[in-house]
Amino acid sequence: MIASRRNFLTQTALVAGGMLSIPAIVSAVESKKPKKKRLLFPEKGTILFQVDSITDAGREKTKQLPNNADSFGRGYAFIAGAALLDHFSHMAISVYNRGISGNKVYQLAERWDKDCLELKPDLLSILIGINDYWHMRNGNYDGTIEKYETDYRKLLALTKEKLPDISLVICEPFALPGTTAVDNSWVEPVRQYQDVALKLSKEFGAIFVPFQRVFDEAITQAPASYWSPDGVHPSMAGAHLMASAWGKTVLGIEL
Amino acid sequence: MIASRRNFLTQTALVAGGMLSIPAIVSAVESKKPKKKRLLFPEKGTILFQVDSITDAGREKTKQLPNNADSFGRGYAFIAGAALLDHFSHMAISVYNRGISGNKVYQLAERWDKDCLELKPDLLSILIGINDYWHMRNGNYDGTIEKYETDYRKLLALTKEKLPDISLVICEPFALPGTTAVDNSWVEPVRQYQDVALKLSKEFGAIFVPFQRVFDEAITQAPASYWSPDGVHPSMAGAHLMASAWGKTVLGIEL
Repeated sequence: MIASRRNFLTQTALVAGGMLSIPAIVSAVESKKPKKKRLLFPEKGTILFQVDSITDAGREKTKQLPNNADSFGRGYAFIAGAALLDHFSHMAISVYNRGISGNKVYQLAERWDKDCLELKPDLLSILIGINDYWHMRNGNYDGTIEKYETDYRKLLALTKEKLPDISLVICEPFALPGTTAVDNSWVEPVRQYQDVALKLSKEFGAIFVPFQRVFDEAITQAPASYWSPDGVHPSMAGAHLMASAWGKTVLGIEL
Repeated sequence: MIASRRNFLTQTALVAGGMLSIPAIVSAVESKKPKKKRLLFPEKGTILFQVDSITDAGREKTKQLPNNADSFGRGYAFIAGAALLDHFSHMAISVYNRGISGNKVYQLAERWDKDCLELKPDLLSILIGINDYWHMRNGNYDGTIEKYETDYRKLLALTKEKLPDISLVICEPFALPGTTAVDNSWVEPVRQYQDVALKLSKEFGAIFVPFQRVFDEAITQAPASYWSPDGVHPSMAGAHLMASAWGKTVLGIEL
């Protein structure tokens, strides 16, 4: 098994609508290990996970070290980051998690220099949007879908301007009805945020990770609360499901 | 991809020496999802990870909930547990982590009722031994290899007596020379502990997870310190490597 060759170039299946052109981010090379592959950047590179509580997942924020379990929390970013470091151990990769609970798009501008641009990521993965809707819905924020789109586009444009060679991953915000915080009245308004995320991923040539579709399929196997008790924050199972979808879509690896 | 069928019954490759008879713990069933498999227990069951700091990995110890990220820490048990809950979501599985940093075999007897037998695990995974050697080596413990074997056998016999239908997984203790705490003088004495673990796994019909071999292969890809800075506690990459080996050997799934 360990010595056999395998081809993991299967990431296209999860791409929303099958419409996006996906960068050939992974290419298999000859090796006795099935894991010997290369990322888009040739030998070394930096990967950054952003943005909100789903990414944060209780990470320590004093040292914020790369490739460090404490600095990664207990969510999908930890699992995906650990998988990345394991599968691409022959490369020199630094993985960071800079998610902060509660973040909405407008809050990113003020910390973007420190928490993104200065790290000079070769690959930036962003998951944002559910707080933009949720906090507006519960009266704690006066944002709109238009503000989400405008601010998100501005952030991506700035990032591309400062780091022209960056690879972008835009993750679809998601919500699971039938849970403690989410009911069916979320579906239509959340879809607007999802549509914006997809639209921006096309505009900026980003890889799109269709988390809503992934969870929609998962709830045919187990109830929504199994994957996310409140419908917003994933359980252990949900965190692995997300890491698995991220790994398959972005890296072409099975988790 | 999602709709394709795959056969994951590949766990034999990692079995030490290829000599053990492995329970057919996983059997693929017809499904549109590649993940639809069954564990040894038919529809529901409890899985328990034990014993020391490598398993503990900073978990919270107040609530000690099953299937809960906080209660699982940031190590291989979190990744393997999350993968298990994701891949076997169609079953009703409770996964616990009851690892405690610094534990040696003799310390398990006093907490075994509460931290194992009362949970009635259908599958128990044990990783123990490195502290039995390390603490003896640095003069903080007067145990011997004989004591390790005697106490370990007693613990397993008690477990089998109280829970006759339990499936056992014995994980090989490991050490990586060329790191901050471990040098080559560890190799031979640690091998004695590994030999005992393998011997007991045969005696009790346990699945054996050969972590030393897994790390030995991994250091052909990246330095030992990449997988474990101190040679005992795994990094993020090392934690995923372990979870991956555990998943492949015990569950027949690729992580």
